[in-house]
Amino acid sequence: MNIYAERIKQLQDLMRAEGLALCYIPMDDCHMSEYVGDHFKCIRFLSGFTGSAATVVITPDEAFLFTDGRYYIQAAKELEGSGVKLMKSGMPGVPEPSELIADLVKDTDNIGFDGNVVNAAFALSLSEKLGSGVKFSCENDLTGEIWKDRPEQQFTRIWEFEEKYAGESTSSKISRIRAELEKDLKNPEDDYLYIVSSLDDIAWMFNIRANDIPCNPVAYAYGAITKNTASVYTGGNFSEGLEKKLEESGVITGRYGARCTCMEVPENTVIFMDTACTGYSIYKYYESRGYKIINIKNPSLLMKGIKNETEIKNTKAAYIKDSIVLIKFMKWIKDLAAKTEPGCVITEDGKPVTEITAAEMLLKLRSQNHDFLEPSFETIAAYGPNAAMMHYEAVPENFSPLKAKGMLLVDSGGQYMGATTDITRTFVLGDITADEKKSFTLTAVSMLRLMNTKFISGCTGENLDIIARAPMWANGLDYKCGTGHGVGCCLNVHEGPHRIKWKITDGRKAELVPGMFVTDEPGVYKEGLYGVRLENELVVSGYMETGDGTFLGFENMTFIPLDPDGIDEQYMNDEDRKLFWEYNRQIWENVSPYLDDAETKRWLKKLLTADEQEKEY
Amino acid sequence: MNIYAERIKQLQDLMRAEGLALCYIPMDDCHMSEYVGDHFKCIRFLSGFTGSAATVVITPDEAFLFTDGRYYIQAAKELEGSGVKLMKSGMPGVPEPSELIADLVKDTDNIGFDGNVVNAAFALSLSEKLGSGVKFSCENDLTGEIWKDRPEQQFTRIWEFEEKYAGESTSSKISRIRAELEKDLKNPEDDYLYIVSSLDDIAWMFNIRANDIPCNPVAYAYGAITKNTASVYTGGNFSEGLEKKLEESGVITGRYGARCTCMEVPENTVIFMDTACTGYSIYKYYESRGYKIINIKNPSLLMKGIKNETEIKNTKAAYIKDSIVLIKFMKWIKDLAAKTEPGCVITEDGKPVTEITAAEMLLKLRSQNHDFLEPSFETIAAYGPNAAMMHYEAVPENFSPLKAKGMLLVDSGGQYMGATTDITRTFVLGDITADEKKSFTLTAVSMLRLMNTKFISGCTGENLDIIARAPMWANGLDYKCGTGHGVGCCLNVHEGPHRIKWKITDGRKAELVPGMFVTDEPGVYKEGLYGVRLENELVVSGYMETGDGTFLGFENMTFIPLDPDGIDEQYMNDEDRKLFWEYNRQIWENVSPYLDDAETKRWLKKLLTADEQEKEY
Repeated sequence: MNIYAERIKQLQDLMRAEGLALCYIPMDDCHMSEYVGDHFKCIRFLSGFTGSAATVVITPDEAFLFTDGRYYIQAAKELEGSGVKLMKSGMPGVPEPSELIADLVKDTDNIGFDGNVVNAAFALSLSEKLGSGVKFSCENDLTGEIWKDRPEQQFTRIWEFEEKYAGESTSSKISRIRAELEKDLKNPEDDYLYIVSSLDDIAWMFNIRANDIPCNPVAYAYGAITKNTASVYTGGNFSEGLEKKLEESGVITGRYGARCTCMEVPENTVIFMDTACTGYSIYKYYESRGYKIINIKNPSLLMKGIKNETEIKNTKAAYIKDSIVLIKFMKWIKDLAAKTEPGCVITEDGKPVTEITAAEMLLKLRSQNHDFLEPSFETIAAYGPNAAMMHYEAVPENFSPLKAKGMLLVDSGGQYMGATTDITRTFVLGDITADEKKSFTLTAVSMLRLMNTKFISGCTGENLDIIARAPMWANGLDYKCGTGHGVGCCLNVHEGPHRIKWKITDGRKAELVPGMFVTDEPGVYKEGLYGVRLENELVVSGYMETGDGTFLGFENMTFIPLDPDGIDEQYMNDEDRKLFWEYNRQIWENVSPYLDDAETKRWLKKLLTADEQEKEY
Repeated sequence: MNIYAERIKQLQDLMRAEGLALCYIPMDDCHMSEYVGDHFKCIRFLSGFTGSAATVVITPDEAFLFTDGRYYIQAAKELEGSGVKLMKSGMPGVPEPSELIADLVKDTDNIGFDGNVVNAAFALSLSEKLGSGVKFSCENDLTGEIWKDRPEQQFTRIWEFEEKYAGESTSSKISRIRAELEKDLKNPEDDYLYIVSSLDDIAWMFNIRANDIPCNPVAYAYGAITKNTASVYTGGNFSEGLEKKLEESGVITGRYGARCTCMEVPENTVIFMDTACTGYSIYKYYESRGYKIINIKNPSLLMKGIKNETEIKNTKAAYIKDSIVLIKFMKWIKDLAAKTEPGCVITEDGKPVTEITAAEMLLKLRSQNHDFLEPSFETIAAYGPNAAMMHYEAVPENFSPLKAKGMLLVDSGGQYMGATTDITRTFVLGDITADEKKSFTLTAVSMLRLMNTKFISGCTGENLDIIARAPMWANGLDYKCGTGHGVGCCLNVHEGPHRIKWKITDGRKAELVPGMFVTDEPGVYKEGLYGVRLENELVVSGYMETGDGTFLGFENMTFIPLDPDGIDEQYMNDEDRKLFWEYNRQIWENVSPYLDDAETKRWLKKLLTADEQEKEY
């Protein structure tokens, strides 16, 4: 019997013993993090599915795994033999998990889940959907009971994110948060407790960082703010002097409890929480004791999204370094490919270059920067048809060698002291088809147009998205993801509250405000053939004030050539061509002063127009 | 004393006598029509303001008039001496009328308004805002009491909008409406009554037209639909045979009551109404009798918005005729201006051409079409700085003569048997400044880009608006109105549910669906200097289907040159230039076969590229 089928069966036996009609298992930790540590990979343990997004619904007789379009192919493969049914979220006729649950349970059933890793908003809406007859047994971490060698939750040393990087003190941030919270109090005299569970909000608020989750420099923690106190509960130890420093800023430190940390407060205290990223157990704790709970969006979401001058300065500096890394990588891979056609690309000492060794090379180049900390997410290096899978990951059991033809897509980023980067380039390694060239050019046009567009203050990413997509749509093409997302500052690579996407159905939208970072990453994905994505990171900035209003634009922070071998000028108008050459000029202007290596400098200069090449720099 | 100041004082005296702390007076009739008949022009009577959109809030001591950006300048002028304070809606710091009311009234005050002309949605939200202490005295039409020579409500003969124009029978429309309503019933067995008050919905539903409101070929009426019956209550008489024909379609006819018509129905009948366009008095009638009221959007709003093949065919044909009218007008005015520079433009028999006589000429040309019924709105012919006022109207007491320099903006349209048109062109009459030329060119670029854009199915006007506005925004310009609105079919010139506008705050948005008509009318308005607007009408149409989705575009229906004298090509990219010349070619192709006059034909041909002029047509 397949090992996963066996584990599922064990869980179902336990469910029967406990009288549970259904178990709900999300891919979440206690903080609703986007990426979860190994301790929380219950779905992987149970089903064998290794993707980053899934939900499992299980009854004593059946098991279902929901995942989205990025993972249909991979999930189908990984679930083979487990007996788990794949539910392709987003496909016509496929229900939402909550709809399936409503179909499967009867009025008086018991549903089991771990209330620590299920967010309160979901549990409350499920409860409303199912009616009051259905009982929640939310202390059930049944997977934990059968998972014998479960990795411990990792706690690492917590270090200070110094003010020279943060640009604002903890006490200033906390006062701003208090001011926001107090707007929502009916009676300004009321006592309140604001509980914050999301790890990047906590890291931002208390100016702390750690390595509890790979790629995301956060610490497992809870924060609690009242009218007069601010507390942070952590698992890891503080680096020397940090605890004292926090205390001097008025922050009380405490220990991260047995997964859920609830602070005792006087009755009549108003409890603030963002139910979408707070565990149901915490909600229940206060609700069952009769506290009034006000559901808010974490005020730090917007505050963190709008970067201050220090953060912008540090991020720009990191992008110069990261751009040089990518430029060196681009030159390395294109030079090798040019030398070794046709067939496999090999290094100068004769080793084949693969998706995996290419990613290693990139990491090696990045690591040469002394303030590089770690990648900001798992590098995607996808060759040929693999690049059509938006979130492809080469693994030792499954990867492609690179050939001196077609295209290589590389999406990667770094955590730097003070900054987070996220960059995608697609490199042409030899002959490409006319259709590949058209797609590359359209992607470049999309990216450049959005980067250069101007807009009136008040616009959201819903308004702007069509600037990037119009050239795609005019060719019957559409990429099935947003055009851009917010990015943290030495923090999570995906951040809110804003994004660039034409159709936002989950309410997560916000006006674009000067200081916001946002990626600009259109693409073309043709299953079985190829993928192109080009991604810069931009910062929203002022453009002009006139009698008609305040106008904004973007300042680009990423300076890496768009491979000229991918460009077919017939798909550009004269303005697009101007933007393309102007971008190359800006790359030269911004990067060349920092380029130590004369050969790379010469190579980069060739991307300028003939006129520009003549100029003395 | 100013006559309006006197009328306001009379009203305030009455208010004191009736114990009213505040009166609320909207510019509405009993059907929430956009344009109201003279009988309902209480605000004009009271304040002297002649614009089409305003709200008056009045206390025993003060009076406020709210209007939007289209009317700031005009209202300031017209309100002079009346003592009425102008509230510029949309400007920072200017409250909404309901906010002002909340500030002005105390807990136990009485507020007076005419519940027939105040929509239920507004009254209900106001009541919620003010709390239960504030009383509504909603039978108060105090303006009516002081308005001695108030015009009667006009009822005209009702005529059939034959199926060869409507493209769908009344009974088919009513079944579709019933099917929509029945989706909202909790219990399919429930009896229901759907009350419809909006005149264009009634005209569409019953395939009737009349002339009760100038420019809008509708009849004052109420409609009532139950599971088994459909009724229409009208004031005017039916043209011969129409009543019988309606009866044969299962429609019961009745008389339009003393302003509010309420049908008696058994208890437990569910009442459907769109509270946004139903009078509060009707709502109260059913609410006070204990009926369950379900607030819906009128289902005919979307049905009417999506035109059928017959409606599209007839509208296209009307646009050819109307385009010829405008082309003849354009040639006439430009030829005259060219002959008479400098100074005033005069006709061949030596009379000065003014904004008023220009509009008359246009009406004369339109009237030569045998199926022209009436203008679809008051023609705007605005010369020079007058065109900076978006909804300027020349009147005998105040108009400009045209000179052989600067620009003339003409926004006009016609009701044709089977169609409604809405067209704006701005004509260059002689020398214009570099800035005028830049603004004209940017407007042409905006219009052409939107007209030619492609988009994926599901987009709304919020997504598309930036395509038109980006060239404006990049120059620090913004027009303070939407880019486009729906248009009826021999019906109202402004129609929902869709529109093109980047920020929609009132919830009135809808996906763009093939068959929808929408205008494309960007502009530049510089107070005291000039105004440019260019407006075509488009129909949403299919573009292509691919593996990535269904893509849509627009088909243009308006074929009138964009004055080449306004174009400065430095503000166009090569694609814009291509679109410009291609549009001229399409004008020639679509219009020239119907042009009876050889001279106009020659004149039109000169707008083609040299290559195209060579071709035999």
